[in-house]
Amino acid sequence: MFKHLSTTLIISTLLLASSSSIADEKKTYRWRLAETWPKDFPVFGDTVKSMAQRVKEMSNGRLIISIDSKNKHKAPLGIFDMVRAGQYQMGHSASYYWKGKDLKTMFFTTRPFGMTATEQYAWFYYGGGMELMQEVYGPYGLLSFPGGNTGNQMGGWFRKEIKSVDDLQGLKMRIPGFAGEVISKLGASPVNIPAGELYTALERNTIDALEWVGPSLDLRMGFQKVAPFYYTGWHEPATELQFLVNEKAFNTLPNDLQAILTIAMRASAYDMYAQSMHENAINLEKIAKEHPEIQIKTFPASIMLKLQQANNDLIEQFKQQDPLTKAIIESQERYQEITRPWTQISDQTYLEISQ
Amino acid sequence: MFKHLSTTLIISTLLLASSSSIADEKKTYRWRLAETWPKDFPVFGDTVKSMAQRVKEMSNGRLIISIDSKNKHKAPLGIFDMVRAGQYQMGHSASYYWKGKDLKTMFFTTRPFGMTATEQYAWFYYGGGMELMQEVYGPYGLLSFPGGNTGNQMGGWFRKEIKSVDDLQGLKMRIPGFAGEVISKLGASPVNIPAGELYTALERNTIDALEWVGPSLDLRMGFQKVAPFYYTGWHEPATELQFLVNEKAFNTLPNDLQAILTIAMRASAYDMYAQSMHENAINLEKIAKEHPEIQIKTFPASIMLKLQQANNDLIEQFKQQDPLTKAIIESQERYQEITRPWTQISDQTYLEISQ
Repeated sequence: MFKHLSTTLIISTLLLASSSSIADEKKTYRWRLAETWPKDFPVFGDTVKSMAQRVKEMSNGRLIISIDSKNKHKAPLGIFDMVRAGQYQMGHSASYYWKGKDLKTMFFTTRPFGMTATEQYAWFYYGGGMELMQEVYGPYGLLSFPGGNTGNQMGGWFRKEIKSVDDLQGLKMRIPGFAGEVISKLGASPVNIPAGELYTALERNTIDALEWVGPSLDLRMGFQKVAPFYYTGWHEPATELQFLVNEKAFNTLPNDLQAILTIAMRASAYDMYAQSMHENAINLEKIAKEHPEIQIKTFPASIMLKLQQANNDLIEQFKQQDPLTKAIIESQERYQEITRPWTQISDQTYLEISQ
Repeated sequence: MFKHLSTTLIISTLLLASSSSIADEKKTYRWRLAETWPKDFPVFGDTVKSMAQRVKEMSNGRLIISIDSKNKHKAPLGIFDMVRAGQYQMGHSASYYWKGKDLKTMFFTTRPFGMTATEQYAWFYYGGGMELMQEVYGPYGLLSFPGGNTGNQMGGWFRKEIKSVDDLQGLKMRIPGFAGEVISKLGASPVNIPAGELYTALERNTIDALEWVGPSLDLRMGFQKVAPFYYTGWHEPATELQFLVNEKAFNTLPNDLQAILTIAMRASAYDMYAQSMHENAINLEKIAKEHPEIQIKTFPASIMLKLQQANNDLIEQFKQQDPLTKAIIESQERYQEITRPWTQISDQTYLEISQ
């Protein structure tokens, strides 16, 4: 078909085709991601690295995401602001860190006596959770995605055994956020202390107890050396981390790279839940073998009941704040109400009968 | 730099560049996938569709996967053979369907008294499961990947209540595979009946009981109309479906499309576990509201104990078959042994204290 065209026309057509192909399919997007965690932080940091690596492989190098850890950007709790301002195109953090800016962000991580990880993933993707989360983040020019689940977090390390509500009176405990407010209703004194100072604070009696994550990340902090009572969890049943993306930056990506980024975040977030199971399991075995003095305990029913009541009271107060907060809480309550009976009939019953 | 070159050379250079670009980045791969399920089958079929749609979007249309359901290929249990022969590049089915060809395939779906879904995902991706699965499928020229989890399956629909082992004597139950062998040791008569004939068989007393999946897929079969006792599960605690890929076909794909296909399968498989939670929850609520005559029951401890003993005996026999079967079983046993204490301390304890 070229034979009727002049040589000049052929050349310019080919040059055009070639240059347009370069623009659409050869352009390399270089993004920067800021994470709340220190460099090479286990599990959380692995999730970010695997996401970036998958994006690179799937895009054939067309989208390259470089990762800045807190050692570099020095603003672990500044991720929201930096991504909003476009200083970074992406971040990895946790939604409940932004509750001081917008209380509604708090409900997309986990909450005391809330859903398990599987219930919560179902809520995000099949129960309207993603849509509600985007209603909260949209006005800030941000997109928010699940960023990996720790599974049920342990209730914390205590120097002394907790036998009744009396033992909580005046107890100084590092337990931040919503859970801190709940436990303060029972007489404890929640305090917040930077991660790097936690061990010393516990060792020197500045605090009597603290919660961190679970066996997966706690042993490396050394808490087992100074606080022999390790309590099971109630306050963070399914802590979901967060990928934050600047919406304008996302919109500059071609459709295929948007899809690649979205699916890479989704797969790596789910992976973190499986990796947390693995790390918790091997470190729990390590506790049993290397730290036989550690006693794993559950708070007595009398304490659990009071914590649950205090939690319910706080939730009712939050519902009064504004219609969207109420809609989020009620969506979660309704979803937990329909998923929990299935969780009980399936996994819980199975775990009981197959012991 | 072109000014010293002849027009002819420029043309041929550009044509070459253009044609090489077409070969590497413009080539469209058209793949065919055969699934065991009928057309538009809920949950299972959704997983396949979402995987294919994600591959299309992420590859910008360079890898297109068309799906043939059993209505089309007429060989629901021929997926292994068709993908092995290259008739289809991919399939979606379940590994335990191939136990007649190779007993070792049975262990990559689920097994009685085995791991929960989260324990099993951790085993696949962090505990050596993927490597063992590939050792089994490699000799057949196949790649096998997790294909979506149903969660804990219900123990089945029974026309009469099961109060003791005596009630199992001669009981005709549709329960295929390994679980059928286990329950036969207690005196029941396992039978296999095609899905389309199950309702009639139960209604006409040809069988006394059957197991299918769970509330997510059972209600549409109508079993609740003729068998009012719905038992909780023990035999398939975490049924993982399977994506099968012809290895030669996979190797013809460029690296980026290999990565896209692999991550799409992984994300869609995880999604199915969340979707199963959602569908089980809403259909369990439907049972409570629309079928109040259905009684949800758990087998008495005396039966569970005997089932577990029969299961252990069979597992010990399987271990004698060959070293790889033994290695797979022992890897799973060891992994369940380290993950189960964490599942008990975390989710199980939490579910008990927060009721």
